[in-house]
Amino acid sequence: MDVSEHELLAAIRRVLSGTGPGVIVGVGDDAAVVAPGSGELVLTTDALVEGSHFSRSTASARDIGYKAIVVNVSDIAAMGASPRFALCALTLSDVVDAPWVMELFGGMREACEEHALSLVGGNLARGPEVTVVVTVTGEVAPGRAVTRAGARPGDVIVVTGTLGAAAAGRRLASGRTPPSDEERAAILRHLRPTARVAEAGVLARCGATAMIDVSDGLTLDLARVCAASGVGARVRLADVPIGPAAGLGDALGGGEDYELVATVPDAAQAGAARQELDETFGVALAEIGAIVSEPGLLAVDETGAEAPLTPAGWDHFS
Amino acid sequence: MDVSEHELLAAIRRVLSGTGPGVIVGVGDDAAVVAPGSGELVLTTDALVEGSHFSRSTASARDIGYKAIVVNVSDIAAMGASPRFALCALTLSDVVDAPWVMELFGGMREACEEHALSLVGGNLARGPEVTVVVTVTGEVAPGRAVTRAGARPGDVIVVTGTLGAAAAGRRLASGRTPPSDEERAAILRHLRPTARVAEAGVLARCGATAMIDVSDGLTLDLARVCAASGVGARVRLADVPIGPAAGLGDALGGGEDYELVATVPDAAQAGAARQELDETFGVALAEIGAIVSEPGLLAVDETGAEAPLTPAGWDHFS
Repeated sequence: MDVSEHELLAAIRRVLSGTGPGVIVGVGDDAAVVAPGSGELVLTTDALVEGSHFSRSTASARDIGYKAIVVNVSDIAAMGASPRFALCALTLSDVVDAPWVMELFGGMREACEEHALSLVGGNLARGPEVTVVVTVTGEVAPGRAVTRAGARPGDVIVVTGTLGAAAAGRRLASGRTPPSDEERAAILRHLRPTARVAEAGVLARCGATAMIDVSDGLTLDLARVCAASGVGARVRLADVPIGPAAGLGDALGGGEDYELVATVPDAAQAGAARQELDETFGVALAEIGAIVSEPGLLAVDETGAEAPLTPAGWDHFS
Repeated sequence: MDVSEHELLAAIRRVLSGTGPGVIVGVGDDAAVVAPGSGELVLTTDALVEGSHFSRSTASARDIGYKAIVVNVSDIAAMGASPRFALCALTLSDVVDAPWVMELFGGMREACEEHALSLVGGNLARGPEVTVVVTVTGEVAPGRAVTRAGARPGDVIVVTGTLGAAAAGRRLASGRTPPSDEERAAILRHLRPTARVAEAGVLARCGATAMIDVSDGLTLDLARVCAASGVGARVRLADVPIGPAAGLGDALGGGEDYELVATVPDAAQAGAARQELDETFGVALAEIGAIVSEPGLLAVDETGAEAPLTPAGWDHFS
C-alpha cells in the first residue's frame, strides 16, 4: 500500500454514499449510530477470503466488493427480512494499491445502492491476503422472521431461479478460451450473484415455514433446514432447475447460487408464490419435492425409485 | 483443521452461551434475530489479524478471543453507548486445531459475559492466517451519542486510567526473562485490555462534548477529535498519566490502551466526573490539557513553553 491509513480512509469516505436514510453518525467515528427500525433487528456477517472465496486474477475489485455485500444481503433475505445497514472490515495485503481498494468500495457501494442499504462503518487492517468481512443489519416485522426450523412433513419444497451456474462459472472464470454466451452467463452468476430480497418477501407472505439461501449447495443447505426442523426431504431430481453451463452435480452441491430454498405448507401456496414471482420479477419458482417426517434426504428419479441423497457442498474445513 | 465446518460449528454452539436477553434467533440460522432496543442503534466492527495485531506465540487463544470482543466494546463505549450483541467472522488457518478454536470462543464468551452482551452469530472461513473480525451492536438514548465532533475551544481534555502500558506490554510479551510485577501488569494490559463502558457513561452524563477510545495512540486519536471538531489541543505533557513499564513516548503514541479521551466544557464537570470515577470504579481521571480554536496539537512543558506535537501512533499502512 502506497498510502497511509488516514489517506485511505479519507478516500474511502469520498467514495461512500455518506449519510443515508436513518444514518445519524456515519463512517468516521468510533462507531456508527443509526435510527432503530420498528421491527426486530436481524444481524449477519460473512467473509470473502482471497484464495478461498475469490482470486484477484479472475475477479475484479469491483466484483469482489459487490459480492461481499450481496452474500450478506442474501442471508438477511433468507430470514424474510429487509437489509438496512452494512459495515466492512477490510484486511489488505501489500500487493493491492489504493485504486484497487477504491474500486472494491465502488463495488460495495453499487450493491448497497441496489438494495437501498447504507455502508455506515468499517475498519482497515493489514494482512497476508485480502479479506473482506461484511456485516449487514436488517429488519423484520416482529415474529415474522422465517428460520430454518419451521419445515413440517407435507410441506412443498420450492427453489427460486436456477442452481449450479455459479459453480460452473467458478470453473469457467479461469478458462483460457473465450466463453460462449451460456458460459458468460455462468461466470456472471459466480462473480455477481443476486440476492433474492423481494422474492423472499413474497415467499414469506405466501406462508413459507422455513427458508435458507443456497450458499453452500442445495443438498447441504436443505439438509440444514431438515436438521433444524427435525424432518427429512424427498427431492425429485428431474425437477431441480439447472442453470446455464451447469450439470446436476453443480445444482445439487455447487453452492454460491444465493437462490432461496423454502418450504410452504401446500401446493396452492406454492402456486400463488410462483405466479407472483413470475409476474412481478420474472423469476421462476420450481417445486422440487416434499418434506417428510423421516430424517435424511432422499432422491427420487423419474420412475419414482428412491435412493439416499448425501448432502454435498462447500465445507471450508473438509 | 482436523474437523469439518459442520462439526466445528456444532462445537462452537455448545461453548456459546446460547440465547440471552433479547435473542430471538441465535447462532445457527442464516442470520440472528434480536429484539430492538428503545434507543438508537450503534454499530462497529474491528479485526484482529495474526502477525499484525497478535502473535500466537505470545497470546493464548483465550486472550485473542477476549481482546477481539473488548476492542469492539471499547468503540461502543466511546460513543457513550451500551453494548448488546456481537457477531464473529473467523478466518482459520491450517495450523490451529479445534481445541484452539474452542479456547478462542471461550475468551470471546468471557468478554461477552463481563459486558452482558450476547454472541448471536458468526461465520467460519479458511485462510493463510487467523483473523478474528467482530461486530458489536450497541444502544444509546436518542440524541445522546458522544461523537468526535463536539469538542469546543475551552473544553478540558481528560483521560481515564493510564496510557502506554499496552505498548510496553507488546514489547515485553516476547521477552525471554521472567517479567517483573510491573512488566507483568503491562503485558496484561496488552493481552487483556479493559473497555471503559461504565466510565464512558459517567463522562457522557458529566457533559462530555467529544469522546474517543485510545486505540491507535493518544496524540493520533486526539488529533482525530480535533480534526472532526475543527479545533486544536494543548497537551500538558507532565499531566499525561503514564502506565506501568511505559515511557512518555508509549503514552503519547503507543496505542491499544483502550482508555477514553474526552472533552468536557469546564473544570467543574471534569471534577465531578473524576470524583465519580474514583469513588465508583477506583479509576483515575487526569486533566491533560485544553481544547483551543487554532488547529493542531501543541505540547506544553512544565515551564509553560509550547512546541508542536506531531500526532503519532498506529497507522496500519504507513
